[in-house]
Amino acid sequence: MSELFAIGESVPQQKRSATRPEFFARYLVESWVPSAKAATVIAGEQSSGTFMQLPGETAELQERFRARVCSVEDLEPVSEPTLRSAHAERRGHTGKYYRAIVELAFPIANVGPNLPTLLATVAGNLFELGEVTGLKLLDIDVPAEFAAAFPGPKFSIDGTRELAGVFGRPMIGTIIKPSVGLTVDQTAALVDDLCAGDIDFIKDDELLANPPYAPFKERVEAVMPVLLKHADRLGRMPMYAFNISGGIDEMRRNHDIVVEAGGTCVMVSLNWTGMAAIQHLREYSELPIHGHRNGWGALTRHPSLGFDFRAFQKLWRLAGVDHVHVNGLKSKFWEPDDSVIASARACLTPFAGVAPAMPVFSSGQWAGVAPELYGYLKTTDLMHLAGGGVIGHPDGIAAGVTSMRQAWEAAVAGVSLEKASAKHVELRNAIAEFGSKL
Amino acid sequence: MSELFAIGESVPQQKRSATRPEFFARYLVESWVPSAKAATVIAGEQSSGTFMQLPGETAELQERFRARVCSVEDLEPVSEPTLRSAHAERRGHTGKYYRAIVELAFPIANVGPNLPTLLATVAGNLFELGEVTGLKLLDIDVPAEFAAAFPGPKFSIDGTRELAGVFGRPMIGTIIKPSVGLTVDQTAALVDDLCAGDIDFIKDDELLANPPYAPFKERVEAVMPVLLKHADRLGRMPMYAFNISGGIDEMRRNHDIVVEAGGTCVMVSLNWTGMAAIQHLREYSELPIHGHRNGWGALTRHPSLGFDFRAFQKLWRLAGVDHVHVNGLKSKFWEPDDSVIASARACLTPFAGVAPAMPVFSSGQWAGVAPELYGYLKTTDLMHLAGGGVIGHPDGIAAGVTSMRQAWEAAVAGVSLEKASAKHVELRNAIAEFGSKL
Repeated sequence: MSELFAIGESVPQQKRSATRPEFFARYLVESWVPSAKAATVIAGEQSSGTFMQLPGETAELQERFRARVCSVEDLEPVSEPTLRSAHAERRGHTGKYYRAIVELAFPIANVGPNLPTLLATVAGNLFELGEVTGLKLLDIDVPAEFAAAFPGPKFSIDGTRELAGVFGRPMIGTIIKPSVGLTVDQTAALVDDLCAGDIDFIKDDELLANPPYAPFKERVEAVMPVLLKHADRLGRMPMYAFNISGGIDEMRRNHDIVVEAGGTCVMVSLNWTGMAAIQHLREYSELPIHGHRNGWGALTRHPSLGFDFRAFQKLWRLAGVDHVHVNGLKSKFWEPDDSVIASARACLTPFAGVAPAMPVFSSGQWAGVAPELYGYLKTTDLMHLAGGGVIGHPDGIAAGVTSMRQAWEAAVAGVSLEKASAKHVELRNAIAEFGSKL
Repeated sequence: MSELFAIGESVPQQKRSATRPEFFARYLVESWVPSAKAATVIAGEQSSGTFMQLPGETAELQERFRARVCSVEDLEPVSEPTLRSAHAERRGHTGKYYRAIVELAFPIANVGPNLPTLLATVAGNLFELGEVTGLKLLDIDVPAEFAAAFPGPKFSIDGTRELAGVFGRPMIGTIIKPSVGLTVDQTAALVDDLCAGDIDFIKDDELLANPPYAPFKERVEAVMPVLLKHADRLGRMPMYAFNISGGIDEMRRNHDIVVEAGGTCVMVSLNWTGMAAIQHLREYSELPIHGHRNGWGALTRHPSLGFDFRAFQKLWRLAGVDHVHVNGLKSKFWEPDDSVIASARACLTPFAGVAPAMPVFSSGQWAGVAPELYGYLKTTDLMHLAGGGVIGHPDGIAAGVTSMRQAWEAAVAGVSLEKASAKHVELRNAIAEFGSKL
């Protein structure tokens, strides 16, 4: 990887153009044309180019508006194309397929402060180019002056902690399960149990938004008094992320319902509401935005297609998301642990003056995961959500929450799980129940 | 493919549940667990399930809310996983990987009329499941009663033809090129040339929305008088799709600018504005929505991951898109022609009472493509956009447009290109210029 493209930095001086402000994108590119040529094709397609020289495309226009190839780092070529290209097949290509890490610079003037068009530029038609047999957007970088044109997280980690009243430790949370089908009253009863267990954070499942059998407003109005009741007892109110995903007006309406009822967080399905909706919500919202990334697998799971999470989370942070899901260690999902940790680190790393997003660990989590998670990240600035690991604890929900806290306290103190569990029955029973199963 | 899942039909009676209204999704599934088991895992994950039986998940709740496996059609297994799963690796899986076409039925009550949550259900976390080593959403099907809860295209093909005054032939169009960098005045001058050539349709490039060097309002105000001037002469006004992609308020504002100036179409980057934005725009807009699918390659290009276009276009039609891009035959993109044709057919096929979207053919197109395109589709209900093929015609833009019309007239009349070109110099010179190049 190029050292010029250090994650977490704003654009370093030596990379900047002397003549025009630019933003940057880094790609893995596979192509049947040599990598330098492929980089030029992509740069052309994504800026001033077409398949032939047109009368309007003067040298001066190119100089001002054409994307610039900053670097091409060759990787080992492959003998078979990773992805099919009928375009290559029509040309009867038979040789090798070049692979490289390519960095492009795009003039900011091409786009302006417009997130959908920023995406169309760094992640548009280029995925479909006939020259390309593999393409992944690895990362983006923008100068702080450009990032400042986008809203960014309003609450980020600090604002979230303030609202939740949780400091110096991770926010321990859970997801309302079963995902769908609970009545409003059943939901409120479960929330009551969760709050009685001193939980920090609860969220709706992404499958549950505003269904006819448990309408959003009724759900909020049933759940919020429960949260407020426990707030009096706890001296802090557990944060509940209500899933407001839907149409624009519906999201605003539902946001207002949450605010009026005294709630402290709203949740959205990022990919399926979309960039314009999230930016709009950020500008409107009085609450942190809990970003659920469902559908993300389709965008990332092939190693030579789509998006790396480093790029993805930056784009959503520009739009203003405060929390982003990153899967969990040893989860029920496909993702290797090193990828999960890299995602969390990316969320926590400042870039271009944009505040961090709080990483949300979820899926197959329980107390026993804490030491490893802390070992990797050396921070408690995260949400650690356990479904079964809290609700399914053999001694009940309160013991589930307690076991998570005990594990985190041990992790931060450098005490082994074994030693901590000798002292703490909740942790001991969590290990007995989940240690082999999960 | 299951006959129960015929494209273009509303849900047939024999597929419907007797007890609950449902919508349907069909997938290609690859898994290290047998396909029937994988189908059950996906159905659980995407409805009432979690990784363990929870107290609230009663038999009655499952009966009402759990997704149902309708069918599992086994395909040949493979010996290597298509996509990596750390979950499988942790279990030390060494055997084969099952592949199947799986159909699931989801209770409509789980979702209600909520597009982002419909997506979270049919295309959410399931892509990331550890059991899954390949997953593609092939198609969806919804009963007409459910589809009626979504807006659907407001103009569709007929409304677009009315506004453009183009009947009984394809709409011949082009894209403003170079994509970026033209001043407002240069754009207006090019539009003037295009209209002088009797073009039917012009669109902005997806890379151009509202940049500082050619602000949207100024661009509309420079272009619209040109269109109106030619409308007087032509008796119809060429349709111009102004790219309003941006934030929600910006899109509404820019839509209003187009309406006030007398324009007849707005364009959006579907994937990067998003589902909520498009539905919102559909409910607000007085104009057809021209849907650009840039970024689509990331979602579809791997044969065992992401989305098939059949599902994709139905979702955007539910949201209310009137025109959808489908690439072109023998284009500069990766896509094989049969895939392009299947996409166009999908757009044109009614489903569940939802109006068709007008398919937009673009990329590397020119007159010579018309006979083959018509041969496949036997319709002229489409847009045929040529960039270089119109603007780069050796005898100028008017000859470029004329050559496209001549080719289409010949195609519809069953006259060969060779015969038609003997009669038409514009077509003859197009073949001479582009026949070998493109």
